Amino acid sequence: MSNKPSLAKGTRDFGPRQMANRNFIFKHITDTFKNFGFLPIETPAIENLSVLMGKYGDEGDQLLFKILNSGNFLSKCSEDDFKKGESAVLNKISEKGLRYDLTVPFARFVVMNRNDITLPFKRYQIQPVWRADRPQKGRYREFYQCDADVVGTDSLLCEAEIIWMMEDVFAKLGITDYDIKINNRKILTGITEVLGASGKEVDFCVAIDKVDKIGVEKVCEELATKGFSTSAQERTSELLKGNLSLEDIKKFLANSEVGMKGVAEIEEVLEIVKNCHETTHAKVDITLARGLGYYTGCIFEVKVNNVKMGSISGGGRYDDLTGVMGMPGLSGVGFSFGVDRIYDVMDELNLFPKHALDSTQLLVIALDDDSRKYAYSTLASLRKANVKSELYPDAAKMKKMIQYAEKKGIGHILIIGENERTSGKLSLKNLNTGEQVSKEINEVIDLLNIIH
Amino acid sequence: MSNKPSLAKGTRDFGPRQMANRNFIFKHITDTFKNFGFLPIETPAIENLSVLMGKYGDEGDQLLFKILNSGNFLSKCSEDDFKKGESAVLNKISEKGLRYDLTVPFARFVVMNRNDITLPFKRYQIQPVWRADRPQKGRYREFYQCDADVVGTDSLLCEAEIIWMMEDVFAKLGITDYDIKINNRKILTGITEVLGASGKEVDFCVAIDKVDKIGVEKVCEELATKGFSTSAQERTSELLKGNLSLEDIKKFLANSEVGMKGVAEIEEVLEIVKNCHETTHAKVDITLARGLGYYTGCIFEVKVNNVKMGSISGGGRYDDLTGVMGMPGLSGVGFSFGVDRIYDVMDELNLFPKHALDSTQLLVIALDDDSRKYAYSTLASLRKANVKSELYPDAAKMKKMIQYAEKKGIGHILIIGENERTSGKLSLKNLNTGEQVSKEINEVIDLLNIIH
Repeated sequence: MSNKPSLAKGTRDFGPRQMANRNFIFKHITDTFKNFGFLPIETPAIENLSVLMGKYGDEGDQLLFKILNSGNFLSKCSEDDFKKGESAVLNKISEKGLRYDLTVPFARFVVMNRNDITLPFKRYQIQPVWRADRPQKGRYREFYQCDADVVGTDSLLCEAEIIWMMEDVFAKLGITDYDIKINNRKILTGITEVLGASGKEVDFCVAIDKVDKIGVEKVCEELATKGFSTSAQERTSELLKGNLSLEDIKKFLANSEVGMKGVAEIEEVLEIVKNCHETTHAKVDITLARGLGYYTGCIFEVKVNNVKMGSISGGGRYDDLTGVMGMPGLSGVGFSFGVDRIYDVMDELNLFPKHALDSTQLLVIALDDDSRKYAYSTLASLRKANVKSELYPDAAKMKKMIQYAEKKGIGHILIIGENERTSGKLSLKNLNTGEQVSKEINEVIDLLNIIH
Repeated sequence: MSNKPSLAKGTRDFGPRQMANRNFIFKHITDTFKNFGFLPIETPAIENLSVLMGKYGDEGDQLLFKILNSGNFLSKCSEDDFKKGESAVLNKISEKGLRYDLTVPFARFVVMNRNDITLPFKRYQIQPVWRADRPQKGRYREFYQCDADVVGTDSLLCEAEIIWMMEDVFAKLGITDYDIKINNRKILTGITEVLGASGKEVDFCVAIDKVDKIGVEKVCEELATKGFSTSAQERTSELLKGNLSLEDIKKFLANSEVGMKGVAEIEEVLEIVKNCHETTHAKVDITLARGLGYYTGCIFEVKVNNVKMGSISGGGRYDDLTGVMGMPGLSGVGFSFGVDRIYDVMDELNLFPKHALDSTQLLVIALDDDSRKYAYSTLASLRKANVKSELYPDAAKMKKMIQYAEKKGIGHILIIGENERTSGKLSLKNLNTGEQVSKEINEVIDLLNIIH
């Protein structure tokens, strides 16, 4: 009869230790978002497929988790549909899906609440998303995104603040050796202009996006197949090989108006950044393209040096996120922290504080039945004073109770036996040092509140 | 081309104001759970249907949201299956579902981590759950549960601590006029024994559970149809009409061993409760049955007086939650706060603090381009000192900027024009009082940090 239970593929449980570490990351991200004037919203996990489909490309549509209609889900589906296969059946049996990211639900939120929200609207959102991807190391089917976006302003202050926020969060988390790559879609457009390949911006981006993986030569081969001229390939090769300064890029783009505008935007952003951080991790990288097609201005991506891991944060400016939902012309800029990858990086670099397990401070141990009864009021006093405490609930051997405290990361035990309850002097033992002292309950409370 | 976007039926967005109020509730619940030694875990939203199905009765199985298999979801499904209908098709096209509560995933977690967790294991869990219920006022298809459970101990201290925690949380939230109804499954078993209807405990519970809705007479009619004797009906009628004291119940149950054990358990729990709260909201109510079949000892339910609302918290002891997953004999006790109902109660009673919107403290307003550049470093200084602040990002009329601050609940503005930036004395205005003072940036920071 008994079933051996299992987790669904690509999903995870988080126990108390992992939760403490994750909450450490969430806390610093949330504090920073708030410090910069962002307010939280939440949207439902379940969205209508009409909202989700067609926003992430064909591949994205495939990766959406679809929810079966309730009740007689086959009622709209004919034998004919069934014979035609999945594409004919799908929209007859499923109308809802799980959100794929936080950006499309945010766009829906803005459109539906356009009359209530005050522009510029700054929101942050920390929730799980789901993708029916093939699970592999570091890639899950259910994972958290932490997004912050501003819509309703073109100000480049927003771009600078993204860099400020990234640097603040990583400083708080102890991540120091990383680059914030910055580029601008207008620069990429300008480059294709200069290369005499106007309109082939997407082909160009797709190709150079892979330079880290396949190398310059293969990138040029790919460009050739897309109709880029030999001279365009040669000039691309130069662009990709060198560590280009902004001045080099300016020379290259001198005759492209849009390209020069992209450079000017980056210059202004970096100028603002200087006001907050004397040195910055931001580095211009014209090979940065980012997959999503909706970016129109600056784009960002964060890579940790010396750790094998994809980008741990990224974002950019988009000019028409809500247009497809009937609200055109709303400019916005946003970015996201990849908490699962940040977790893995911090784990590898051993950056989690030891005390992060926000555990019970004190385990009360009663040595006999009368002491147990006495301990109830001790426990009540401790908790009223916000000392996180518990009483071992059963009669047990001292060794077992101390093991319980140690496994749970509880630093102190308070022993109550006949002597203690008749004298009112309780035995407080520090499990790390082994030191034991005799204290009245108020003294115990004062001591514990000082330590934490 | 444009689609008017909509929310999926029975789901909700939470804007910044609602988030602040919800977080106020979550914070006090979490603080209390931690204060009592509970540690957090999280489980995935998606579970295998093999874990979920058969745990909530037939109705529950119907209300599970099922997820369509990815890719060629029809591949295992024959034309024959299709002709047979939903029941033949379902397990061919869907293997996963959304969690229906936090109890079954917790049981799965305990079984799968049995070798790593230390008993007694105290966990809390705050996550959304999904039910394909017909949406109506106060009932949603996606809603949060806040559960705390202890497994691996029979100690009645746990039951007493549930009452302690309920009273602590409601005191912090400002909810004062409520009852914690307490009963014990053993008492219900004892009553059926005394009534000469042993084994008909479920019929009895189902019937008396409705007494508030249908009245004593109808309850007795229902008992008649279930084969309860006339004298049993008469004695039930007496039980339901009176406001019975524990002494009355003892007299009634005097000859039932199991019934008297139930009474003794409640007495011990209430005795322990006294140590923490001189007066308690706990009241014995033998009509309390609670639907779920797995309870075996004390059961609890909280009702707010003078507000039309179902129970806002409830729970009880179960003796074999993990048995069906191959780990028998693990006793546990747990309870849950219904955050959505608590929200509605607090809203109706106007209990949310006005300052709960954890908003930006200060809006910086620059009057010209040079002042804007000056303001960047002001902004950086404010944020380094953890003053939650923002700079209005665009050139705009003063009125518009002040409206922005007011709508967002920002209490102060800091005005920077030519005078301010040349003198270093910035104009700080309190938007509530209208008072305006001239201060250096360090003074501004000190002032704002005192206020918050």
